[in-house]
Amino acid sequence: MTGELNQLGLNRIVRHIRDGRASCAEVAEVFVSRIRARESTVGAFESFDEEEVLESARRLDGMPDAGPLRGAPIGVKDVIDMRGHTAAWGSPIYRGRMPHGDASCVALCRAAGGNLFGKTVTTEFAYFSPGRTVNPHNPEHTPGGSSMGSAAAVADGMLPFAFGTQTAASVTRPAAYCGVIGYKASWGSFDLQGICGLAPSLDTLGFFCREIEDIPLMRSVLCGDRADLEPRGDGDGPRVAFVKTPHWEQADDATRNLLTKAADSLADLTPTEEVELPPGFGDLADCHNGIMAFEAARARAYEYLAHADLLSPQFRELMETGRAVTHHAYRGLKGQAAEAMNQLATLFDRHDVLLAPSATGEAPLGLGSTGNPIFSRMWTLLKVPSVTLPAGRGPAGLPLGIQLIGRLDEDNALLRDAQWIQAALNLN
Amino acid sequence: MTGELNQLGLNRIVRHIRDGRASCAEVAEVFVSRIRARESTVGAFESFDEEEVLESARRLDGMPDAGPLRGAPIGVKDVIDMRGHTAAWGSPIYRGRMPHGDASCVALCRAAGGNLFGKTVTTEFAYFSPGRTVNPHNPEHTPGGSSMGSAAAVADGMLPFAFGTQTAASVTRPAAYCGVIGYKASWGSFDLQGICGLAPSLDTLGFFCREIEDIPLMRSVLCGDRADLEPRGDGDGPRVAFVKTPHWEQADDATRNLLTKAADSLADLTPTEEVELPPGFGDLADCHNGIMAFEAARARAYEYLAHADLLSPQFRELMETGRAVTHHAYRGLKGQAAEAMNQLATLFDRHDVLLAPSATGEAPLGLGSTGNPIFSRMWTLLKVPSVTLPAGRGPAGLPLGIQLIGRLDEDNALLRDAQWIQAALNLN
Repeated sequence: MTGELNQLGLNRIVRHIRDGRASCAEVAEVFVSRIRARESTVGAFESFDEEEVLESARRLDGMPDAGPLRGAPIGVKDVIDMRGHTAAWGSPIYRGRMPHGDASCVALCRAAGGNLFGKTVTTEFAYFSPGRTVNPHNPEHTPGGSSMGSAAAVADGMLPFAFGTQTAASVTRPAAYCGVIGYKASWGSFDLQGICGLAPSLDTLGFFCREIEDIPLMRSVLCGDRADLEPRGDGDGPRVAFVKTPHWEQADDATRNLLTKAADSLADLTPTEEVELPPGFGDLADCHNGIMAFEAARARAYEYLAHADLLSPQFRELMETGRAVTHHAYRGLKGQAAEAMNQLATLFDRHDVLLAPSATGEAPLGLGSTGNPIFSRMWTLLKVPSVTLPAGRGPAGLPLGIQLIGRLDEDNALLRDAQWIQAALNLN
Repeated sequence: MTGELNQLGLNRIVRHIRDGRASCAEVAEVFVSRIRARESTVGAFESFDEEEVLESARRLDGMPDAGPLRGAPIGVKDVIDMRGHTAAWGSPIYRGRMPHGDASCVALCRAAGGNLFGKTVTTEFAYFSPGRTVNPHNPEHTPGGSSMGSAAAVADGMLPFAFGTQTAASVTRPAAYCGVIGYKASWGSFDLQGICGLAPSLDTLGFFCREIEDIPLMRSVLCGDRADLEPRGDGDGPRVAFVKTPHWEQADDATRNLLTKAADSLADLTPTEEVELPPGFGDLADCHNGIMAFEAARARAYEYLAHADLLSPQFRELMETGRAVTHHAYRGLKGQAAEAMNQLATLFDRHDVLLAPSATGEAPLGLGSTGNPIFSRMWTLLKVPSVTLPAGRGPAGLPLGIQLIGRLDEDNALLRDAQWIQAALNLN
């Protein structure tokens, strides 16, 4: 049984423990031994203390009412503070930085009985300069970024759940590349205290997990929303809009085939149509980039002004780009984004969920780049919730994903639709 | 001359230095000696290092191109990180907490040549439980809160400028009580990295200063907006809406007379009319309170869950209130606020600026409370910019203020109108 435990999602693990089928210690041991076996290959962790984790599990075994996450192993991206562990934010500037407490999401998980398993590798300040994690499906390929350690650890069965953050494509892309579920919340859903910010009007907390129903469970812990989804019936499918997006030509053949086939299959089961995004949406990736640069130049001003020599060339370039964006231009970009948000809201009058690519294709070969963020920028800019589902493999044998996008602040409705689509497409 | 220097605003100090009328060191010495003389009475500072400040001034004297704030003394509320100084956030939990760097606003001021003078007293986590600062006009009265040290230091001539933050009334109220200019920016104007958050959808950086034109100067440093205002001509006054607000009955006679007279005087000079706020605005203070509690219960989850015994009873109560607000109720409150924001935007089609009370009256007697936040809650909730101007004295001889409110994200337009109104009412 323990051999399968590390393939289960958060809900099932919690239920296993609650029903007495496994103790918190047994669960912890299963994941610890997987980490012991695989970490030297995958390199997902920035810090992990076996004794601490097992001790915590034993303590939780003595606390039957510890909460809805009792005994569940949880990973934390290294841009997120966790008491007793360094949080270096992927930068040599902060090597050895010991936080003064838990980030809100960590504190809330702890209070719900979660077993905080350690810190996972991040790119520098959650931007593009990679850490050492590899893709667990093929170590010569990137796992994507910035939440690279979290995506790889969940994909490899080292954790059932891990936190990431997204400012451009930092959850969606690594989830797709690693073949796990990736959820980027509606902007503003969760508190971000204790998390290193990059561009505050874009920064969002995200989850990596194995089952869709794990997402509402964690949402309930963080923001008190309901923990369960009300499943749609067989004949009650969502109205799907297949959006190729203005970047369709950048997707490879495998991705275009995957998406087109998914849309065709859905069309047999539920109202599904291809929808062209409003004119101007082709400019939103640049709009996103300008806003991100402007805000990052302020959010990480201290590091640029006091420690520029310790920044990667990529990050310095982001800072310099951001400093060159005028306040007037920034306001223009914000106006453009606000108008597009209104247009997108109108689109949701006729459709429940959008189907779009998660990434341009499989995880690219090489570890020097985290891949192309183009298929996420727009959705992050528009603040809408997104979930990426694993959907088969590409020509190199690496995972592909499909992305589902929902109405702003209607995250559980999106997840319900995603669950329906996942079953309809046999993606389980 | 040095005797007057500590009465000057930021712009004038910077110009004095630039024109060679005083060195950075001379300016620093003037403020240092004022602090030395008055700090034991006022208690505005959490940390202040005379040698560090004088050394920094001497260094700036050797850097003629240090930037637009060269040599200007700046104070920093203790919820804001400043390198080399503890930031205890007004809580015994964080006594001795040494930050890992500068908050964004501090880093940007430093890079612009500002002389960071030290940390000013805050209430616990910028909520209601007071620190030790007294009102410099009468030490038996509160200076207001939460940015109590910043307001008192500027009022007392110990600093020309200091940062505060506002989540409810933490800039407007202490500015009014201490008789200085208080500016709460449009929500989202400035980066808040390195600042202890209380309720992220409400938290805003604010300024305390002596002259309105100091505000665009600091805005230019923080977000690159233009540093100067284009003054309105004599016959080109703003269209003023006098809003008594649904809380008018809570204002004392002196405040009601002050506002009524101000409206009458303005009516002789520029289109001014009394305007009733839309129905439902009377509920916005409660709406603000519910949102603040819900968000604070997440933002300060770690402190509540790990260190409840070190929280004040007031703060514990806020946490418990917030934990009792359901996600459904919170969403309802957010919807209510969004609708009111739309209604307020409509009101600005016919008026340029709103005139309203800053507080219920003078600073109340006693140091156990920071006073009533009622006249700020609504405007903080609606994210609009606000500036409070000193406007005479009340029956106890303590300062009174008037509050001017502008369109969202049109902060410099508000400041231009405030400048016109200040001159029209002879408030200088």
